[in-house]
Amino acid sequence: MEFPAWTAPTERPAGPPPAPLPPGERVGFAVVGLGRLSLEEILPAFGETKQAKLVALVSGTPDKAKAVAAQYGVSPEALYGYADFDGLKNNPAIQVVYVVTPNGLHKEYVVGAVRAGKHVLCEKPMATGSADAQAMVDAAKAANRTLMIAYRCQYEPYNRAVQKLVRGKTFGATGFIDAVNVQNMAAPDQWRFNKALAGGGALPDIGLYCLNGARFISGEEPVEISARIWSSANDPRFKEVEETVSFTLRFPSGLIANCLASYGLHESRRMGLHAPGAAIQFDNAFAYTGHRLSVAHRDGEAESVDERRLAAKNQFALEMDHMAECVRTGRVPRTPGEEGVQDHKLMEAIYRAASSGQVVKLDPIEKEDATRGPALSEG
Amino acid sequence: MEFPAWTAPTERPAGPPPAPLPPGERVGFAVVGLGRLSLEEILPAFGETKQAKLVALVSGTPDKAKAVAAQYGVSPEALYGYADFDGLKNNPAIQVVYVVTPNGLHKEYVVGAVRAGKHVLCEKPMATGSADAQAMVDAAKAANRTLMIAYRCQYEPYNRAVQKLVRGKTFGATGFIDAVNVQNMAAPDQWRFNKALAGGGALPDIGLYCLNGARFISGEEPVEISARIWSSANDPRFKEVEETVSFTLRFPSGLIANCLASYGLHESRRMGLHAPGAAIQFDNAFAYTGHRLSVAHRDGEAESVDERRLAAKNQFALEMDHMAECVRTGRVPRTPGEEGVQDHKLMEAIYRAASSGQVVKLDPIEKEDATRGPALSEG
Amino acid sequence: MEFPAWTAPTERPAGPPPAPLPPGERVGFAVVGLGRLSLEEILPAFGETKQAKLVALVSGTPDKAKAVAAQYGVSPEALYGYADFDGLKNNPAIQVVYVVTPNGLHKEYVVGAVRAGKHVLCEKPMATGSADAQAMVDAAKAANRTLMIAYRCQYEPYNRAVQKLVRGKTFGATGFIDAVNVQNMAAPDQWRFNKALAGGGALPDIGLYCLNGARFISGEEPVEISARIWSSANDPRFKEVEETVSFTLRFPSGLIANCLASYGLHESRRMGLHAPGAAIQFDNAFAYTGHRLSVAHRDGEAESVDERRLAAKNQFALEMDHMAECVRTGRVPRTPGEEGVQDHKLMEAIYRAASSGQVVKLDPIEKEDATRGPALSEG
Amino acid sequence: MEFPAWTAPTERPAGPPPAPLPPGERVGFAVVGLGRLSLEEILPAFGETKQAKLVALVSGTPDKAKAVAAQYGVSPEALYGYADFDGLKNNPAIQVVYVVTPNGLHKEYVVGAVRAGKHVLCEKPMATGSADAQAMVDAAKAANRTLMIAYRCQYEPYNRAVQKLVRGKTFGATGFIDAVNVQNMAAPDQWRFNKALAGGGALPDIGLYCLNGARFISGEEPVEISARIWSSANDPRFKEVEETVSFTLRFPSGLIANCLASYGLHESRRMGLHAPGAAIQFDNAFAYTGHRLSVAHRDGEAESVDERRLAAKNQFALEMDHMAECVRTGRVPRTPGEEGVQDHKLMEAIYRAASSGQVVKLDPIEKEDATRGPALSEG
Repeated sequence: MEFPAWTAPTERPAGPPPAPLPPGERVGFAVVGLGRLSLEEILPAFGETKQAKLVALVSGTPDKAKAVAAQYGVSPEALYGYADFDGLKNNPAIQVVYVVTPNGLHKEYVVGAVRAGKHVLCEKPMATGSADAQAMVDAAKAANRTLMIAYRCQYEPYNRAVQKLVRGKTFGATGFIDAVNVQNMAAPDQWRFNKALAGGGALPDIGLYCLNGARFISGEEPVEISARIWSSANDPRFKEVEETVSFTLRFPSGLIANCLASYGLHESRRMGLHAPGAAIQFDNAFAYTGHRLSVAHRDGEAESVDERRLAAKNQFALEMDHMAECVRTGRVPRTPGEEGVQDHKLMEAIYRAASSGQVVKLDPIEKEDATRGPALSEG
Repeated sequence: MEFPAWTAPTERPAGPPPAPLPPGERVGFAVVGLGRLSLEEILPAFGETKQAKLVALVSGTPDKAKAVAAQYGVSPEALYGYADFDGLKNNPAIQVVYVVTPNGLHKEYVVGAVRAGKHVLCEKPMATGSADAQAMVDAAKAANRTLMIAYRCQYEPYNRAVQKLVRGKTFGATGFIDAVNVQNMAAPDQWRFNKALAGGGALPDIGLYCLNGARFISGEEPVEISARIWSSANDPRFKEVEETVSFTLRFPSGLIANCLASYGLHESRRMGLHAPGAAIQFDNAFAYTGHRLSVAHRDGEAESVDERRLAAKNQFALEMDHMAECVRTGRVPRTPGEEGVQDHKLMEAIYRAASSGQVVKLDPIEKEDATRGPALSEG
Repeated sequence: MEFPAWTAPTERPAGPPPAPLPPGERVGFAVVGLGRLSLEEILPAFGETKQAKLVALVSGTPDKAKAVAAQYGVSPEALYGYADFDGLKNNPAIQVVYVVTPNGLHKEYVVGAVRAGKHVLCEKPMATGSADAQAMVDAAKAANRTLMIAYRCQYEPYNRAVQKLVRGKTFGATGFIDAVNVQNMAAPDQWRFNKALAGGGALPDIGLYCLNGARFISGEEPVEISARIWSSANDPRFKEVEETVSFTLRFPSGLIANCLASYGLHESRRMGLHAPGAAIQFDNAFAYTGHRLSVAHRDGEAESVDERRLAAKNQFALEMDHMAECVRTGRVPRTPGEEGVQDHKLMEAIYRAASSGQVVKLDPIEKEDATRGPALSEG
Repeated sequence: MEFPAWTAPTERPAGPPPAPLPPGERVGFAVVGLGRLSLEEILPAFGETKQAKLVALVSGTPDKAKAVAAQYGVSPEALYGYADFDGLKNNPAIQVVYVVTPNGLHKEYVVGAVRAGKHVLCEKPMATGSADAQAMVDAAKAANRTLMIAYRCQYEPYNRAVQKLVRGKTFGATGFIDAVNVQNMAAPDQWRFNKALAGGGALPDIGLYCLNGARFISGEEPVEISARIWSSANDPRFKEVEETVSFTLRFPSGLIANCLASYGLHESRRMGLHAPGAAIQFDNAFAYTGHRLSVAHRDGEAESVDERRLAAKNQFALEMDHMAECVRTGRVPRTPGEEGVQDHKLMEAIYRAASSGQVVKLDPIEKEDATRGPALSEG
């Protein structure tokens, strides 16, 4: 369905109206874990999907599950406890299992789900270490199921626009990226401060966005890593996991990325991308909403700072629809399990670099987008 | 359902997760008219409502209706042509009829719907003149049905924040508002250029946002109006309706509003609000998305320009949920039919002022929010 | 003197270093009136001029004059009281008299200065009415002296960039300008509230920037004017002069300008310029510093809001150097006395329109820049 | 001289008018070196000083010196070649020698000047190594002369506002600073690429701003440094000096600073400063003009990003006036020679860290502002 242009060619076009798949043709999702992320972002995002639909919930707290199921129209029969996770197998409406538990439990439910014949979308970080992550990839492969990691930024329009600017070398080859992802955390007893459940502190939770961001925007893999880690002494939050990590990546093209993540500073989630001919500022780069992108470059005798305003879209809906499309068409996800494995290997290298105080060197990987599926289509 | 705070008190709180009503308890809506606005904005917005649900469609093009119904999960039995509009009456799932036809057809369907026992949400402008608008109010009253006009800005968080700033007199009494709502239109044969269907040109379509904005932000009603109207000669778009209207409103408090609407200029939808102690810039004030609000004021030796960033929300979902809440609870809508009648009276005064070249004086209305229902609750 | 490029061609060039005229070759200025504007802006600006130099002062308060003369290195012999204004004639070092007194005194000193054989730079507004303004032009002509009005914005780089954008029709013909110039005034006994000395209130003092801005940016002269004027009742500031004026100008090309000036609102000095293909926001347009200019236009699927950052320059220095150049080369100033006469005629039309409540029609003037001297050179 | 307030208390006050010292009472400066910086920035800045005046020039190109002297009103007798540098001694009008030569020549002229009985203002970087820098401090001490290093940012209003915000701990203790200072250089044969003349590449020229900025804003001295250095292979610009340096500083309070400087990227000169309660963005932090400062923090349910707009001032004039004030009053400069020595020691530690690939540890210095003179007065 499309309408003829109703505004002048100099007006930004609205694009065709959304064309959601009929509910009966959509791919059914079970969401595993009803924590904050599920309730605040993922379940509401099903209202904006076009190929995915919510059909089941898995939760350890039946009362919450019942209430949430009612809110989102999930049938009471499609509620599962962790004890009866195996029951998913027998529900053919469930094609995809979206694992949103604490990180330390990802492996168990991902492996369980693929063995139950389901495709899996798994939250980031994929696991608590590269060995587990690889085991998850292997299990999916053995079961011939699709495994995608929920790197939402790779589906988000502003991040994609930055990727396109960088790869197109419009302003020359990007030589430097600075990425900051910080937030000030409370509640020392939450699972994010528990090493076994979280796998680490600021690095795997939020530093991962900087790491993955530098990688997917450039398409390259780092060959050298240096890093430092610090935590406030006597802070009950940081008995097991790190507060702050700073790391520097060097990529084969010469690109350098300075990254910082911290659990002790006011929310800020930005990237700067620097090329010979332009300085790109990307604010709220890793946030759910509020992205702002500007490109500073010479324009005659002036410096022009061009803010590009795109149509914002719900990242969670976009990534769930991508997963649904993969299931429907058999395509490999842009962010398959391998993408998550690579990040875990690199986070391990970051920890090694920090503890040794030495630069860690890595074998160069020449292939662009080495751990990713085919590029997404435009628009 | 609420989670304990997980971030420090200096971080912006996420708020409780959304708690949508179970589908079975939501208020059923029939959407009348499947033009651009319905397909691009209103139907998708049902994915973000918490109290409203889509249950029926009315359209003059059965093929389109069928396709859209499939996309949005509307039962084929709940599709209606304009000829069988009366059939709505017999569908108890339909509690609200949302009229999204060209303006000139609003009256017929609003009156038809209330007589069929349905509550009505009607797009703005309410009608093509105040007499029709009043007749619609009267019909709803006679049928004891709720009639709400879809003034989405009055439900949008940034507009509400501006209203609160102005009414709170934080920086003194606002003395001047300048409002601009312009867009560059094409397609001379579209209904917006047809006087009978549109009721007018830039004024009722987009100038109305400036008019209604000055009114609901201040809570006052104008006592003096001056206006000018111009159209490009020999432009096929403006054979029947005006291209550009400029009008000045004076309110009892002394507040002045300079407003401009045009169909011939690049999209811009902003307000400036000026008080003795601050200058407020409100960009994209009337847009669907992308609102930006900043308050400039003295801070010691500096001028501080504070940009307030709020959580954006889908305005169409908010207004449909408000309508649903009115139906569920019996409350009077914030923007009832009377609000639309008043705007039509004022637009007629604007046309009179423009054609006479004279200031039009109006009787003062002392009551704050004279044509509105009770204030919305916070948050 | 010029240096070879030391940065890449994609870096904004610094331009050649300034090449000030040797002090002995510069044009000598006498400043008449040592009020706030002279002390805060004009005298300091001589530190940034390249063709003008300060050589004399005229003041009614000898102690202040002595102190200021010492600060700026003006010889004690070059201090004059108003009583010995005629003495300027005998000081050959004085080539230009810059009149910075209250408006109501401009005529006397301008006429006196040209009769004393001096060229004159006169602050805006030129006078307190068009008759006086015309008499000043006539006197300068009779004396064969150059008379320039200090319309600093016409020499300021950002305003010139806007003028170039508008006249170049890069985004089509500008159809609408909204201009706001407001500030919140205190000290009811200052001369600005005295009708005889000021000639009016917000209109001639700050509204003039909106009026002159719309004129010099477009190069056109208005053919229709409507206006409204309001003042707070019982406010000691507004016993003689107006607080707020709103006026609408229509130009032959169809361009509309909505202007507002007020003495009762927090400082804001902005213009919006609207063309079919772009919306230009120009903040701090009329301010001494802090100009910000952005152009919003379509760029593919995005809206791009391009902020153009220029090298800021001291407007007072630029206008004094222009005057000096006119004296040195015999060229006609870009803003001669005739430019000031025209603004006075138009302000009188604005007052007429406001008091009659009627649109005032004016004879069309076809010539571009009808009351201005030759265009300034680039850069 | 001060005027009574003429605007309301809610308007930003203009401050008292400048009160420059009479020329005869000002401190006389000789500028050594007539390169780009002198001609484009320093000589013009004397037009904005209040306590300093230009009285002499030293240059190796007599023709240029003569032309420039004429432009700035310097007497032909006060022109010196490097061969007759000793002649400065006999010119009592010269109280301060401002050394603006290539870095590698600073020592010779600074030592020569203090031995000639002159006070010295020396451009940054102070020298090409800490030994030379210390020798310069020793020579000044032996001669009982004042030596100040031209760290202009420490005198610039926006940088001072950031320093105040950070030290006042308004939003808690700043935990992280990211600083970027990059520009894309051409002209491979310029002295900046000559190791003997420049002392290094991007680090001493522009990375120094990041280093000094983190130090003076916090008042602390680093205890740990890690660093990486890279240069494009086969680039004629980087045969002798480095293109890019990335370094991380850790300060005793726990503050971390990630800094990057490069000669191969489009101009960008920014800092981010992160505290538990706010994220400060400081754009154009190290630039001559165009500073923008915003503070993001929670404000109720909103995030408020407050842009603080200050009155801009010429940094070169401010630093020269500070030097003049030191000479007039005998006070120690805020940025004495010791401040420059410390930066050289730290740059040497950065080079060591980069070449060793190891963290360099430094003895903690407890004293705040250990290498600085007394704090500047407010305003």
